[in-house]
Amino acid sequence: MSQGSNTIVPQGFRATGITAGLKESGSLDMAILAADGPCSAAGVYTTNRVCAAPVKWCRALTPSSDVRGVVINSGNANAATGAQGLADAKRTAEVAAGALGCRPEQVLVASTGVIGRLMAMDLIEPGVRKAVSGLAREPASFETAARAIMTTDTKPKIVSLSQDLGGRRFALLGLAKGAAMIGPRMATMLGFLLTDAPIAPADLQAILSRSVDRSFNCLSVEGHASTNDTVLLLSSGQGTPLSGDHLDEFTAMVRGACESLAQAIADDGEGSTHFITIDVEGCATEADARAIARSVADSPLVKTAIHGADPNWGRIVSAAGYAGVMFEEPDLSLTINGVVVYDRGAPTPFDAEALSRSIRARRPVDLRLSFRLGEAGVRFWTCDLTAEYIRLNADYTT
Amino acid sequence: MSQGSNTIVPQGFRATGITAGLKESGSLDMAILAADGPCSAAGVYTTNRVCAAPVKWCRALTPSSDVRGVVINSGNANAATGAQGLADAKRTAEVAAGALGCRPEQVLVASTGVIGRLMAMDLIEPGVRKAVSGLAREPASFETAARAIMTTDTKPKIVSLSQDLGGRRFALLGLAKGAAMIGPRMATMLGFLLTDAPIAPADLQAILSRSVDRSFNCLSVEGHASTNDTVLLLSSGQGTPLSGDHLDEFTAMVRGACESLAQAIADDGEGSTHFITIDVEGCATEADARAIARSVADSPLVKTAIHGADPNWGRIVSAAGYAGVMFEEPDLSLTINGVVVYDRGAPTPFDAEALSRSIRARRPVDLRLSFRLGEAGVRFWTCDLTAEYIRLNADYTT
Repeated sequence: MSQGSNTIVPQGFRATGITAGLKESGSLDMAILAADGPCSAAGVYTTNRVCAAPVKWCRALTPSSDVRGVVINSGNANAATGAQGLADAKRTAEVAAGALGCRPEQVLVASTGVIGRLMAMDLIEPGVRKAVSGLAREPASFETAARAIMTTDTKPKIVSLSQDLGGRRFALLGLAKGAAMIGPRMATMLGFLLTDAPIAPADLQAILSRSVDRSFNCLSVEGHASTNDTVLLLSSGQGTPLSGDHLDEFTAMVRGACESLAQAIADDGEGSTHFITIDVEGCATEADARAIARSVADSPLVKTAIHGADPNWGRIVSAAGYAGVMFEEPDLSLTINGVVVYDRGAPTPFDAEALSRSIRARRPVDLRLSFRLGEAGVRFWTCDLTAEYIRLNADYTT
Repeated sequence: MSQGSNTIVPQGFRATGITAGLKESGSLDMAILAADGPCSAAGVYTTNRVCAAPVKWCRALTPSSDVRGVVINSGNANAATGAQGLADAKRTAEVAAGALGCRPEQVLVASTGVIGRLMAMDLIEPGVRKAVSGLAREPASFETAARAIMTTDTKPKIVSLSQDLGGRRFALLGLAKGAAMIGPRMATMLGFLLTDAPIAPADLQAILSRSVDRSFNCLSVEGHASTNDTVLLLSSGQGTPLSGDHLDEFTAMVRGACESLAQAIADDGEGSTHFITIDVEGCATEADARAIARSVADSPLVKTAIHGADPNWGRIVSAAGYAGVMFEEPDLSLTINGVVVYDRGAPTPFDAEALSRSIRARRPVDLRLSFRLGEAGVRFWTCDLTAEYIRLNADYTT
């Protein structure tokens, strides 16, 4: 994660973050990402049947070869808001289009916050105009935008990379927000990736879908799939689209950026004290490996054991056991922070005190579930479950 | 729930609960249920691929027409213990059979407690002999047995019913334990039902399977399916087996007893402050209704909102939205404690302060998700998620 003065901004983009007044705290709550000219845009969205109005708006518009901007607000999710919610999302795009000098269909919209409340359009409309007037190319503006999309995140999530591809240097900048309602079915609440590499729209969508599948979709805070999950990838690049090896290298850049952001979200899960990496290997299919990883990641008993630095590994193997994947106990071995605790279906002696100390001492915890059923595997990220998560979520709206 | 002096003991059974020394606390940790003669027995078990040695032992023996006793211990689950675990379960049955004067295959075994530790057989063997010597017919002995199978349960769960069927009066007594690792796929940790009604073994299994499906399988504390889930139904009844209307009435008794025990488990979920009933109605299939109910019941965001008396209903409809069931938002309406908060896909005005007060004031909370997709529905039980759950589970083994 490069931050601060290391942030590299792709050419052709401006950003800003402002306070529109949607949060009672008076914190930053609106960001705009704007392009100087037509951008290719790809999007990946929540699979929740109850999806936010901005998701409906964006889903209808991407992939696109001519997007000019994205309006993002925190503080209100504009989800489960019926026909009025959709009208409000459209109106937000219209106001932004007026200020940016483009058509509403060239403006994407994303929201995060409380579900089920109508948007305060009397705050949104002047907020959008104020934000557009403050757009700037400086790295600091993108960092402010990353702050403006936060809800209970404790820090902004921003990543930037640059690489020479075919004699030209291209940049990739990503922003994301997470914290809670981070479920396994299309994962982060919101993620935005900007690049100045020229990529054909169809390639852009394929690259994004594949990258999200191995990054944000390998992430869970508590397994509750959001109504608002959105990841957008915008390319301002002009000229001959990348192809061949250069396209492959760009794909690796996008995947790397998505992985960094997904890890940052797990690392900043609400109230968490441990960042947990779950490697599942030796499965018959990747879908099997993923089902097992999710089952372990979403078990409150596993998450609380790690919070308590308790090497209570039975909770991990039993969570694997109800994932819906066929296996026999001797097919499975488990290591925690490199220590073998369960070997081919039987407990194995280990120093529980030392392992507990290792969990207590380190923020990252590594769980490795090794099967002998095939060659497929997955790496998954989550965090522990703490009393602070309970406190944050028992009092979020009232 | 009839307790204390109201407990009705079916004819032909004795029980006891003792301290074998498996728990550091020195609390009761072993129970035996014994029959004077051959019993019909039916069992339903966890679907977890990692299942406890006693589950393997019982699964191989039920349904049966000749069971004489059940040995139950708390403090150690004898799960993920490999070949040694299975040998230990068998040895437990052998010791009990020796003391009861029957064959090992006539003794069922059930365990609950920490996963992954070998059984302390040097305590189990004398414990079983001591328990058998203390078997008695008094209601108090069954109440002690109900206490001896507890782990973090705060109270014993016992139910007894009696009914005239065809001119004879039959009794049904049920014991269960729950607290945590209560998941939706075959639910309670342990449940035992005893009756003196004569029931053919095949009927007994069908009655138990159906009753469990609409009771223990409609229960979740945190969605983590245990390795040890076991529900046994033993009948000591002699003579012509019940049939026709009398069998139907007996079936209703069993289902009623199972529902009472399942509700008692949800009501005593680890650290819980609210007992939550989720009614899902108007679905195309019962499987759809159940998937939605589970998704809502297992969402930490829903559970923490109720703990905080927060009518943050967006979390409930969004949990329904990721259950994997196809619906459109206008198909769904939601009431909380009888108050409509979401009506056919749109938010509806309600007094949030009053609803919050109602949640705060009452231990039971009623959620009703009404769809307009068909006639199928389900009633599901769970509890809220609290900092006390975190505390209990962060420190369970260490």
